[in-house]
Amino acid sequence: MSKNEVPYKIYLTEDEMPKAWYNLRADMKNKPAPLMNPGTHKPMTAEELGGVFCDELVKQELDDTTPFIEIPEEIRNFYKMYRPSPLVRAYCLEEKLQTPAKIYYKFEGNNTSGSHKLNSAIAQAYYAKKQGLKGVTTETGAGQWGTALSMACAYLGLDCKVYMVKVSYEQKPFRREVMRTYGASVVPSPSETTEVGKKILAEHPGTTGSLGCAISEAVEVAVKNPGYRYVLGSVLNQVLLHQSVIGLEAKTALDKYGIKPDIIIGCAGGGSNLGGLIAPFMGEKLRGEADYRIIAVEPASCPSFTRGTFAYDFCDTGMICPLAKMYTLGSSFIPSANHAGGLRFHGMSTTLSQLYHDGFMEATSVEQTSVFEAAEMFARIEGILPAPESSHAIRVAIDEALKCKETGEEKTIVFGLTGTGYFDLVAYQKYNDGEMSDYIPTDEEIAASVAKLPKID
Amino acid sequence: MSKNEVPYKIYLTEDEMPKAWYNLRADMKNKPAPLMNPGTHKPMTAEELGGVFCDELVKQELDDTTPFIEIPEEIRNFYKMYRPSPLVRAYCLEEKLQTPAKIYYKFEGNNTSGSHKLNSAIAQAYYAKKQGLKGVTTETGAGQWGTALSMACAYLGLDCKVYMVKVSYEQKPFRREVMRTYGASVVPSPSETTEVGKKILAEHPGTTGSLGCAISEAVEVAVKNPGYRYVLGSVLNQVLLHQSVIGLEAKTALDKYGIKPDIIIGCAGGGSNLGGLIAPFMGEKLRGEADYRIIAVEPASCPSFTRGTFAYDFCDTGMICPLAKMYTLGSSFIPSANHAGGLRFHGMSTTLSQLYHDGFMEATSVEQTSVFEAAEMFARIEGILPAPESSHAIRVAIDEALKCKETGEEKTIVFGLTGTGYFDLVAYQKYNDGEMSDYIPTDEEIAASVAKLPKID
Repeated sequence: MSKNEVPYKIYLTEDEMPKAWYNLRADMKNKPAPLMNPGTHKPMTAEELGGVFCDELVKQELDDTTPFIEIPEEIRNFYKMYRPSPLVRAYCLEEKLQTPAKIYYKFEGNNTSGSHKLNSAIAQAYYAKKQGLKGVTTETGAGQWGTALSMACAYLGLDCKVYMVKVSYEQKPFRREVMRTYGASVVPSPSETTEVGKKILAEHPGTTGSLGCAISEAVEVAVKNPGYRYVLGSVLNQVLLHQSVIGLEAKTALDKYGIKPDIIIGCAGGGSNLGGLIAPFMGEKLRGEADYRIIAVEPASCPSFTRGTFAYDFCDTGMICPLAKMYTLGSSFIPSANHAGGLRFHGMSTTLSQLYHDGFMEATSVEQTSVFEAAEMFARIEGILPAPESSHAIRVAIDEALKCKETGEEKTIVFGLTGTGYFDLVAYQKYNDGEMSDYIPTDEEIAASVAKLPKID
Repeated sequence: MSKNEVPYKIYLTEDEMPKAWYNLRADMKNKPAPLMNPGTHKPMTAEELGGVFCDELVKQELDDTTPFIEIPEEIRNFYKMYRPSPLVRAYCLEEKLQTPAKIYYKFEGNNTSGSHKLNSAIAQAYYAKKQGLKGVTTETGAGQWGTALSMACAYLGLDCKVYMVKVSYEQKPFRREVMRTYGASVVPSPSETTEVGKKILAEHPGTTGSLGCAISEAVEVAVKNPGYRYVLGSVLNQVLLHQSVIGLEAKTALDKYGIKPDIIIGCAGGGSNLGGLIAPFMGEKLRGEADYRIIAVEPASCPSFTRGTFAYDFCDTGMICPLAKMYTLGSSFIPSANHAGGLRFHGMSTTLSQLYHDGFMEATSVEQTSVFEAAEMFARIEGILPAPESSHAIRVAIDEALKCKETGEEKTIVFGLTGTGYFDLVAYQKYNDGEMSDYIPTDEEIAASVAKLPKID
């Protein structure tokens, strides 16, 4: 494949954009374990889930047999405002690395929320609106999900309440301001607006919050306020379903030029980007039609796949959410304070956890200084300032390309560039000033939080 | 033209991208007045300009007869990393406004510098590199130009020294950090590193700087350091030449779908975006092949076109740069402190000034609260958080579309969306908090600075 044949950026036409999401679970022999009621330890029913999520999303959450689910026209039209996202051939990076590998990345940062999160935000907001709800509640950590949801709600005229982890609320005032510009109300978490928030504040007066705690607050508000439901930006099956648009577009773009990837790489926090990117490729793999190396990349400071336990666990700190069977570090695990990027969730998508458990994908972890080194190199060569999360995938893509340089193999590498780093410049500043450090949790630390996993028969 | 015929976003293929820039001056009967030596009051020669700018750029600056100038392949390849930029049909905005008008915008914000500035930055850096120079110096106000130049220099391995207006340096640490990530050295201006900076600091110890002052410092450093030249992000003919890539792409995209615009709107500070966007359309108008309404939009707080004087003036505070004949408010004019956006330059491109003087275009000014009102509306409906500068054009595009609603006319409006507002959230916060105010300079204020214009025979 020569430079003249494949353009720098492959854009699909509107006609080529996916008309249905792909539900990876339909092709899994071992289905992901169901969400479980934390009180009864029985699988959550549609009725129980319906108090938290809106009805259509509950259906999607529970459906593990329908391979394709139509994307409603309204969502397809919204997608057309910022999609298709380009599949970029990293010619400049290849040249810099002097590698025979062909490197492609699917760039999801060309929208104001700055990441792939908008793909699911608009879907979740759409179904909430369709159900006649007044609004939705959610949590946000780094702020990408909150921003995406604010945009989607502004577009549809839905109320949007965001519980933002207090440390981010204070350190990222601009993220907060974007959400306000989109009309969302943003509350630092833990807050006095919820019972669970008050309880956490009473127990830990100086706490700067955590994602698990913000989830508990957002869920409480949704459950207690008529006309509101809770929405979540990752982990859930429904989110992976919506994010399959990333992989479907990428696959169509590759097919157009007759390109078959050897390695597919994505960063993994809760799994939304990775699950979306790999969906159609993993589908082929599950059906025995093709083989790919699929690599999940996680931070060494929050290594759910590589050092966690595959077990039922709580998704939130307040322990009011359903239990999920996943690779987890324990719901009380909090990444070291020096951890700069996102990907801080203690668990992982149940779907991806099952696939990893069954040997369909690999996982690796990388330290943050090496991640920022890759980020800066990428910014200078490919002209895009990447989000720290996305840079985990860049790091491993570069490493794999350098291996090809050694072996002379012309492998084709595809990775997910989930977003931009415009709101992560405090972290870049630390890196630029040589003040960034690494931290790998000890076995004892992980064992301590894993010991608190709920006991399930 | 129905929704089904024109896609939401028109992307050109790589083959359709321009291979030459269009030099608008070649088609002007009344050429823009030459830059003038501030000492001799004679037109600047190529030799004189060569001390400040690199040779190929001097040639481009002085060439007012060659209609097309080839874009070197290296620059075309760089363009392919972030261009073509989409020409977007604002279906959602049209629907919201309930207007029969068709609205299109050319969006230049999909690159890390966040604006159209990169189009000229890479060209200027390329010619500096080709001439074997070590580096370039420049000034930056809001920071878009400095970021763009840093990116271009990082890509080519050139040193980059940016003098950043002190108030921006302090209020926009993240802008500064992006430039540092791209390896640039960023100095707050005025500084102790130059003679002109020392002089200004001695005279005005507490000054927070101005664009005119930062220009003086950057020019001084370029002239005094062997192997360095000065580069500028707007105003100059060469910059308008490079920016013609915006208009050329837009025109090709429109032609593809048989669309002929009625009104073309761009914001105007120094004129780089406006001059680039309108270039091929203005060319047709000058050659009598087509007619368009072309509207320059400027801030009411810095109204060079609408309230300035067409005369020779200094481009910088230190009065060391050549004189330019332009619409100007006087080089000592500084916009009111409450002015939040860019577009703060006291003068205007000589090319655009001549065209405006000759009646080929209109100009209008808008107040900033109405600009941010349009910005927020646009963000919520079209999903892009616009730069305050770009939002001047949005304001007038919306106003023109609303006029069409009244008259029932189905006019086609094209406007330039020059960039994103990620680094302008202090201003958005002010707007969100209801703390933004307007200021229109009095006739006396403008007369006072215009009175200081240099006397030219």
